[in-house]
Amino acid sequence: MRIGAVEAGGTKFVCGIGDENGAVEDRISFPTEQPEKTLQQVIDYFQGKQVEAIGVGTFGPINIDPSSPEYGFVTTTPKPGWSGYDFLGTLKKAFQVPFGWDTDVNAAAFGEATWGAAKGLDSCVYYTIGTGVGMGVYSEGKLVHGLIHPEGGHVPVRRHPEDTYEGFCPYHGDCLEGVAAGPALEKRWNVKGSELAADHPAWPMEAFYIGQAVTSAILMLSPKKVILGGGVMHQLQLFPMIREEVRRNLNGYVSHPAVQDEIDSYIVPPGLGDNAGLCGSLALGLAAYRKEHA
Amino acid sequence: MRIGAVEAGGTKFVCGIGDENGAVEDRISFPTEQPEKTLQQVIDYFQGKQVEAIGVGTFGPINIDPSSPEYGFVTTTPKPGWSGYDFLGTLKKAFQVPFGWDTDVNAAAFGEATWGAAKGLDSCVYYTIGTGVGMGVYSEGKLVHGLIHPEGGHVPVRRHPEDTYEGFCPYHGDCLEGVAAGPALEKRWNVKGSELAADHPAWPMEAFYIGQAVTSAILMLSPKKVILGGGVMHQLQLFPMIREEVRRNLNGYVSHPAVQDEIDSYIVPPGLGDNAGLCGSLALGLAAYRKEHA
Repeated sequence: MRIGAVEAGGTKFVCGIGDENGAVEDRISFPTEQPEKTLQQVIDYFQGKQVEAIGVGTFGPINIDPSSPEYGFVTTTPKPGWSGYDFLGTLKKAFQVPFGWDTDVNAAAFGEATWGAAKGLDSCVYYTIGTGVGMGVYSEGKLVHGLIHPEGGHVPVRRHPEDTYEGFCPYHGDCLEGVAAGPALEKRWNVKGSELAADHPAWPMEAFYIGQAVTSAILMLSPKKVILGGGVMHQLQLFPMIREEVRRNLNGYVSHPAVQDEIDSYIVPPGLGDNAGLCGSLALGLAAYRKEHA
Repeated sequence: MRIGAVEAGGTKFVCGIGDENGAVEDRISFPTEQPEKTLQQVIDYFQGKQVEAIGVGTFGPINIDPSSPEYGFVTTTPKPGWSGYDFLGTLKKAFQVPFGWDTDVNAAAFGEATWGAAKGLDSCVYYTIGTGVGMGVYSEGKLVHGLIHPEGGHVPVRRHPEDTYEGFCPYHGDCLEGVAAGPALEKRWNVKGSELAADHPAWPMEAFYIGQAVTSAILMLSPKKVILGGGVMHQLQLFPMIREEVRRNLNGYVSHPAVQDEIDSYIVPPGLGDNAGLCGSLALGLAAYRKEHA
């Protein structure tokens, strides 16, 4: 099979072709500019490539309500030109194939459940912690939507007692994203996160916040796997710290071996590594194909 | 149709018979004692009543994994005799009918989605705020389970700046339940919550905590309705305060009319009133019947 995948990020787009086993055979990447220009690059890439379906995992917020006349639109974003743009419709005009459409983080969660760290499981939560914080939720074998889609990067958090940084989220100040995304690290410590030593006090504080959000996700959703990706999570020393925060927060309340004895294999990096996003979009495209041909 | 319903609470059991429209035609209530005695009362009640299925919504935590040999057991509870008890198996031996089995709060969410405030919607979140705090989650047309089931009453919360009460949760101290359930009101203000005047400062503080949890639930799950039940929510002055907290917390970030202009019909009391629990169990029983006869 030849399935198209579009990973639409706020700073760059990645397009690729893959098969039903999650193997990606070709890819291309270009910066995110005005939507007309960027989507023309997407169309040019897939032209003549004979894809049988296309999956799109994108930055948001987006309209994911199939009954809405604005299904497939980007809704409100500060990114110039994209707010109210008919992203999906533009691609559908160019290719008469089934389309999958979801947030980049829901796509990543789905990719991980299809071929990655949550393979074979019917639930997982995926966080990306990078320039922002995003959350994808897969539960009972379905990606979670409702009014819109999960936006769990913006939950309120209890402040670390030694943290005086006010947070940078323009909506909430010190929500999770405001205190734990990459820019918060840089603003709090006056140096890029990637330049902080592995034993710097930045990391226990970072783990305090991420661990708190993961604790809430476990208590609200009881996912079978928690996957933490994104640039900040390249700091692998965070994993044991976050697991310890979660264990301390839960304090034995959730009586299940996954959190009690096997937490090292419960809270994990993406099984697909930095391919989680593109493979997620591929999985969305594959699901759209299968739904159409069921 | 004649469907049996069991609402198994920590202090009392309610059993009833209802039909496929959610109409309850008979009910009985008795205190929760040792499991052998209490379940015998349940069996005696349904004996000869010709029910075609039985739904059980129960206090927990419980085992809801159908592949587990301990499916249908109560797992860890301080309630004498119930820990490790085969609740569902005991009933199955007495009645050869399809059984529904879930937490009391998941049942209530399901009942509300079937006949109540979330009727016709494919998602809702149900909180009960009483002697404890429980959370049921219905998403994408399914009740949410994973490792276990949601236990969203125990999420960490940011503390109210004027609250010096340490919280009563034996596991977490000042988690949501620890600072917002009925006993917290009584311990903080030295008088039962039901005796506090409607304009007492207890209520804005209570709304601060509940509103924060609801905010997190909206951000993680994007439910199409948020339903707040339980004894504490009989204080109806809490509803406008909680809605205001949620609106203030979200601060325009979730761009959907339900939270922006229609929040009065988005965060609501149970449509089934104090029948939410029993009707939820009835809905579980009905779903089990339909699955068996699909």
